[in-house]
Formats: sequence, C-alpha cells, structure tokens
Amino acid sequence: MSDAIGIGMIGLGTVGTGAVQLLQDAPAAMRRRRHAEFDIRRVAVRDPAKVRDVTLADGVVVGDVQQVLDDPSVQVVVELTGAAPAYEWIRAALQAGKSVVTANKAVIALHGAELFDIALAKGVDLMFEASVAGGIPIIRSLRNGLVANRVESLHGILNGTTNYMLTRMTRGEGDYPEILADAQAEGYAEPDPTADVSGADAASKLAILSRIAFQTTGTAADIYCEGIERIESSDIDFARELGYTIKLLAIARLAPGGVEARVHPVMLPQDSQLANIHAEQNAIKVVGSAVGTQVFTGAGAGKMPTASAVVSDLVELAERKRAGATTSIGDMIVGDEAARFASIEDAEIRYFLRMQVADQPGVLEQIARILSAQHISIASVLQKERDLQGGTVPLVIVTHEARERAMQQAVQAIDALPLVDGGVRLIRMEAA
Amino acid sequence: MSDAIGIGMIGLGTVGTGAVQLLQDAPAAMRRRRHAEFDIRRVAVRDPAKVRDVTLADGVVVGDVQQVLDDPSVQVVVELTGAAPAYEWIRAALQAGKSVVTANKAVIALHGAELFDIALAKGVDLMFEASVAGGIPIIRSLRNGLVANRVESLHGILNGTTNYMLTRMTRGEGDYPEILADAQAEGYAEPDPTADVSGADAASKLAILSRIAFQTTGTAADIYCEGIERIESSDIDFARELGYTIKLLAIARLAPGGVEARVHPVMLPQDSQLANIHAEQNAIKVVGSAVGTQVFTGAGAGKMPTASAVVSDLVELAERKRAGATTSIGDMIVGDEAARFASIEDAEIRYFLRMQVADQPGVLEQIARILSAQHISIASVLQKERDLQGGTVPLVIVTHEARERAMQQAVQAIDALPLVDGGVRLIRMEAA
Repeated sequence: MSDAIGIGMIGLGTVGTGAVQLLQDAPAAMRRRRHAEFDIRRVAVRDPAKVRDVTLADGVVVGDVQQVLDDPSVQVVVELTGAAPAYEWIRAALQAGKSVVTANKAVIALHGAELFDIALAKGVDLMFEASVAGGIPIIRSLRNGLVANRVESLHGILNGTTNYMLTRMTRGEGDYPEILADAQAEGYAEPDPTADVSGADAASKLAILSRIAFQTTGTAADIYCEGIERIESSDIDFARELGYTIKLLAIARLAPGGVEARVHPVMLPQDSQLANIHAEQNAIKVVGSAVGTQVFTGAGAGKMPTASAVVSDLVELAERKRAGATTSIGDMIVGDEAARFASIEDAEIRYFLRMQVADQPGVLEQIARILSAQHISIASVLQKERDLQGGTVPLVIVTHEARERAMQQAVQAIDALPLVDGGVRLIRMEAA
Repeated sequence: MSDAIGIGMIGLGTVGTGAVQLLQDAPAAMRRRRHAEFDIRRVAVRDPAKVRDVTLADGVVVGDVQQVLDDPSVQVVVELTGAAPAYEWIRAALQAGKSVVTANKAVIALHGAELFDIALAKGVDLMFEASVAGGIPIIRSLRNGLVANRVESLHGILNGTTNYMLTRMTRGEGDYPEILADAQAEGYAEPDPTADVSGADAASKLAILSRIAFQTTGTAADIYCEGIERIESSDIDFARELGYTIKLLAIARLAPGGVEARVHPVMLPQDSQLANIHAEQNAIKVVGSAVGTQVFTGAGAGKMPTASAVVSDLVELAERKRAGATTSIGDMIVGDEAARFASIEDAEIRYFLRMQVADQPGVLEQIARILSAQHISIASVLQKERDLQGGTVPLVIVTHEARERAMQQAVQAIDALPLVDGGVRLIRMEAA
C-alpha cells in the first residue's frame, strides 16, 4: 500500500461518504487497474466526533482543514463541502502541489481560470467531472471522446430540481408554488431554492461545459439567465396545445459574434429527446463537427452518481501520476481569448408570446405593427375566447427566428399598449 | 514535427479519408493539446495510383502493407480496411511493438483476447473506440467514466441498418423485403446484408462492450443471436396495439449464472428511451451500481463519426506515450476467467407469442395447459376475429417472466398442436 495514492478529503457529507464507500468497496473492474490504489490519509470534517456511515482508521478524521493541506502524505485533495471557503482550500491545495478533485461547480465556474493556471504552474491537476451532471461522464466525453470535433452547440438539462418541478407541472400535478413546496418537502429542492429555480446553478454548469467545449473564459455572471419562477400552468397548457414541452435549458453555441450562452425556459417539440427527459434526470445534447448529434442522459445528482464521478477522476489522476504524466488536462481547459460569450441580444431565436388583450377590434393589428416594425415575422397566432377575464382574452403569437434585441424592444412597446393587460409573457423556443 | 507521433495507416477508404482530414484540419481544441501532434508517414492502399480526396506527401501512399509494418518511424498503426487479413496485420503491428487503432469490430470481438495479450506483452496499446457505436464514446465511458461502478446491465441499439429498417417498418412504410431493398438502394444496407440483419454485427459489438463492462472472455459466437429477418409488419402492428415498439437489441446483464448476453428483436414500451431511437441512430443504456441508468445516443456509423472516434484514440495514445505511460488500457480489458457468458436458456424473460389457431373451441385451453406445464404464467391474451385465413384466427399471448428453456419447450409443444397453423412466433420483451 505504500505505492497507493494518498488522499485527503475535505468534507464527509453525503457525496464524501459515497466516495469513501466506493474507494473501500471498489468494483472488480476498478481493482483490476493496478494503478488505482488509494489510501485515505486525512479527512477534515466539522465535527470529528460525529458517528459516520463509514469506518476510517484511527486518526484519519480531523477537525481542521489545515491538517489535510499540510499533510505531506496527501497527494490528492478531494473537496466535497460546498462550503464558503472551498475556493481558498482548493487554491491552497494546488499551491501546495497537490492535485484536487472537486464537485464544486460554483468555485470552478467562478474561479476556474485562476485555479487552472495555478494547477498548470504547479504541474498538478484540478478535476471536476462531478461538478456537472453527476455521474454522466460529460466533461471526459467533451475533453477526450470528442477531441477531434469543433463543438457547434450544446443543450443541457443540467438542473434536476427544476426539471423535476417542470415535469410535475407538465403532468398537471399543480402550480409552481405548490410543486415547489412539494419538492422542498421531498428533498428535491433546498429550503432556499433560489440557486436552482433562478437558473444560477445551471448557468454555473454551463460556464464549465462551455469552457471545455468552446474554450470560453467567461463565468456564470456573463451568461444570460432566466429561471422558472414565472412559469405558470397556463404556459404549459398552451405549450402542450402547440406540441411543445417547457424545459429549463442551458444552451451554448458557436455564433458569429462569439459563443452564445444562455439559460432560460424553452419550448421544445414534444417528440424531441430533451423534451422527454423526465423528473430529476439530466441530459446533454452535443453537436460536434465530426460526430454529429450525441445525447448523454442520466442522474445529474445524488450521493452515488456524484461519488462515482469523483472516483473516476481519482482513477484518472492515479493513472496519470503513475505514468509520470506532467499535467495535460489544464492544456485544454485554459480559456481562449478569442472565445468570448456573445450577448444574448444578438441571438436569433423563435419566440412564444402570450398576453391578455382587450376583446376589441384593432388589438391584433397594433401588436402586429409593433412586431413588423422590428422585422419580426409572425409564424402563427392563437386567439381564444376561453378565459375571458375582465374583458380580456388570451392571445398567443409564435414568431419565426428574430433577433433578441428586436424582440426586447417589441415586448417593451407591446407592454406599453393600453389594450394589453399585465404585459407580455415571452418563452423562447428551440428546434430540439 | 520531429516530436510528432508517426502514424502508419492501412486503408484509405471512407473512414480512413475522414481520419486524415481530421488530422490535417484539427479543430482548435485538439491543436491546443500539445501532446497530440501527428505525422502520417505511411499509408498502404490497394491502388496507390487512385486519386484521393486528401493530399498526402510524396511517397507516403504505398501499395504494400508490409511497408507500413516495417517502417521504424511508424509508432501507431491505424487499421481501417475491414479486409480479411486485418487480424494478421494488427497482430504483426503489435508484435513489431507498434500501438494499433482500429475500427474493426469483427477482429476485436473474435481475436481480442490474443491481441490484448500481445499488446500487454509488448507494452503497446490496442484501441478500438471506433469499433462500437461510431462516434459515441462508449468504450471510453465504460472504461473511465464508469470505472467506479459494477456494471449491472447494458442494452444497446448497436446496428444502424436494422434500426433504420425497423423504424421504417414501424412507420408503416413497407414489409421487410421492400424495406430491405430500399435500404440497399439508399446505401443503408450492404448488397449482402446478412451480417446486419442476422444480428451478427450487433453480437460482435456486444462481445466487445461486454468484455469491457463485465470482463467476459467470450466471443460473438458465444452470444445467442437472432436477427430481424422474420419480423413481419403484423408483428409490429400487434406490438403497437399493446403499446410496444420492436427494436433489435444487444443485451448483456449480470445474472446468477454469469453474464447473460443476447441479441434479438425486442418489444420495448413505446415511451422508453430506446424505443425512441430512430433510423440509423445508435444508443446504449448502461445501468451502473453507483451511477444508476445512463443512456448514450448518437450516430453509430458513417465517415466522420467513425473517424472522430479513431482520432480520439490517437490523441489518447499520444498523450499516454508522451507521458511515458506503460500500457494500462490492457489491464482492464483482459478478460476475467470468472466472467463467463451464461446460456440464454437460464434467462428470465417476458414473451410475446403470436400464432394462427383454428377457430375452434378448446384451442386456448390446450395452449394454456402447455404453458402451465412449463410454469409459464400468462399476463394477457388477445384473440381477434379479424384476419380469418383458412379457418384460423390470430392469437396473441403475453407472458410474465419465464425461463427461456421452459419457453423453448413450450413453443416446441405448441408447434406440434394440429390446431396451431404455421408455428409460434416468439418475440422477447424488455421493460426498457
């Protein structure tokens, strides 16, 4: 065992416990890999006295992160806390010449550039397969399997909580507030659900995927982000009527002005693959210049799927270390100055617009004139008599592809019309 | 460029041309990887005088494979011929201490064990991502991404030709003979379609996946294999009526007696993910002990998807070589004595049975008695008056899970009943 890779862990929560279990009870396929022998030498936790689901040797569990960082027998630090100082811990570990494996998407999305630079300078690796889409090996697939491709686009269902909620709303099981309350009660949503429902979590993951797929340097803050908080059951009903399903998508694609990256609710054709990813499942559709379209689906979170990704990183690290590899992972993920996020304003998108309008002649004409002035072409109109509330009727317009900037101006103009009640609801559409 | 990896190719057909194009016009993401520099030093083709879609330096294209094998500047041999002597060439290359990248599923499935042993002994690698499911990085995902998992089962649509044909039959576009003729005319099926329609191609691919997922030592010859040649439009119609879609699946799963591996037409619930893989697409569903269910879908064949997989292997090889890696890939794929293919006779399967029976009292009773004698429990019966041909009516029986051996005996007994006309049609069912 003296040949084993020394592991130091920070955090022994759900995922950390799962990782220890996988390391202690490795499947035969992993044990066969002679390069993948590990020894868990230090584990820092908040309360070392707490009884755990896993048994570790005496003295391994400590109460102070510094003991992990300072231990010369620790070659790889596994950071699985999600805690606020995670960034400092990861940076300190890299600077101490230790490789790091983490599931912390926020740190990688926000501080990735700096951390990869430190890893490169120190000749160690920073690995984060677990940070996006749990056990789906998407980072690895983009980095290795699709290495000979120029990635053209990437569409992901990257947040299980919102997909679970939208799935239930689509099944007619309730409105947003009650479904959210259910999801919280069942543990699918956090007590403070903001990061999930606002799209921020998906945006962090998209920033990470985009860095690998497109060599972008931007962070989640540079990504247009709109959550599902305003999705109503009636949006879902209208979508269904038109043959669409609403999903929260993270989208990145090569565009003339850079890499278009955005997170928002999307209407997808009901028979598309992504529309049929249900409940807390994740999925990523990648279009590569050589491979064409590929779709990866699986559990995006959870104890063992995430732990599986952590251990897959450890095995890769171990094999690289054993082979005497100097770092190469960093070569690929260091951002490219040329690959910038384009503003969503330049994106060309199809739109679904819904509004309550006065049941009077001339309304549609006024709206059509506004759209036309912005060179937005109407694909279809749905006006119904049902739902007559206070003299207004619902009007639905689906457009052909239009520029986001033009659409924003049109929406502003329509919102200002006295005959339109309560403003325009806008949902973007995607072909798949 | 003196640092570049010297490549020798055997074959410059469709995929070979694609691979050269990808190497010559590598995307930015690949060029960034400093370890991945290649120099195509020798290419053996049947007719060196033939004009090609790619330009190679003078003297590179030769007419004799031996010149590739003997060239000391060639470190990696890329075999892409599908020709009969491919096995000898690959073996000779490995014995000469060269790593090999191939798309040749038949050679890997049949001679894998011997070839991996040679590679291991010589300290070189034998890579074959392109041999299964084209550009989908399934070999890599099983080997690396899911390394911390015990694979529990694997369901694949691994043959694009048959999936294309079944998709068209499901859409009601014709019967087997005409759809086959169409597929041949359109280039989706070979002039001799046997390898595809018989399931042999899928069985070779399953033998390869199973070796990696379960460390089995068996070849395609050890895998139960039944093709789509006998699927009739009426099977598809009955399936649809019951809520199922017929697909040719390659299945491997851990069972008490070993690894159950089989290729045959399957009825899948219409809303399952694999039932919705259309046309020539491939898909693999993997259930891992830690990650749960994952599904990978994409183009399973074609020039650029396959070339993309070949080049991804080359990049991995280059990085391992540059890092001074001794071979490790072989460690994992060398078979395990303990992992044998179980006989299909011990498999527990649900069955769809269809037969034409005399329109007389007592028929169902006789059939029910035979099934009951084999401890096969009936889940549902569908007897229709339509289709009355020469005094017979169609009878459809769906069973609960039963043992294949018992079912084979029951089928034999039912076939012997005078009241059953033309024998039993049996299609196995899967939950997903």
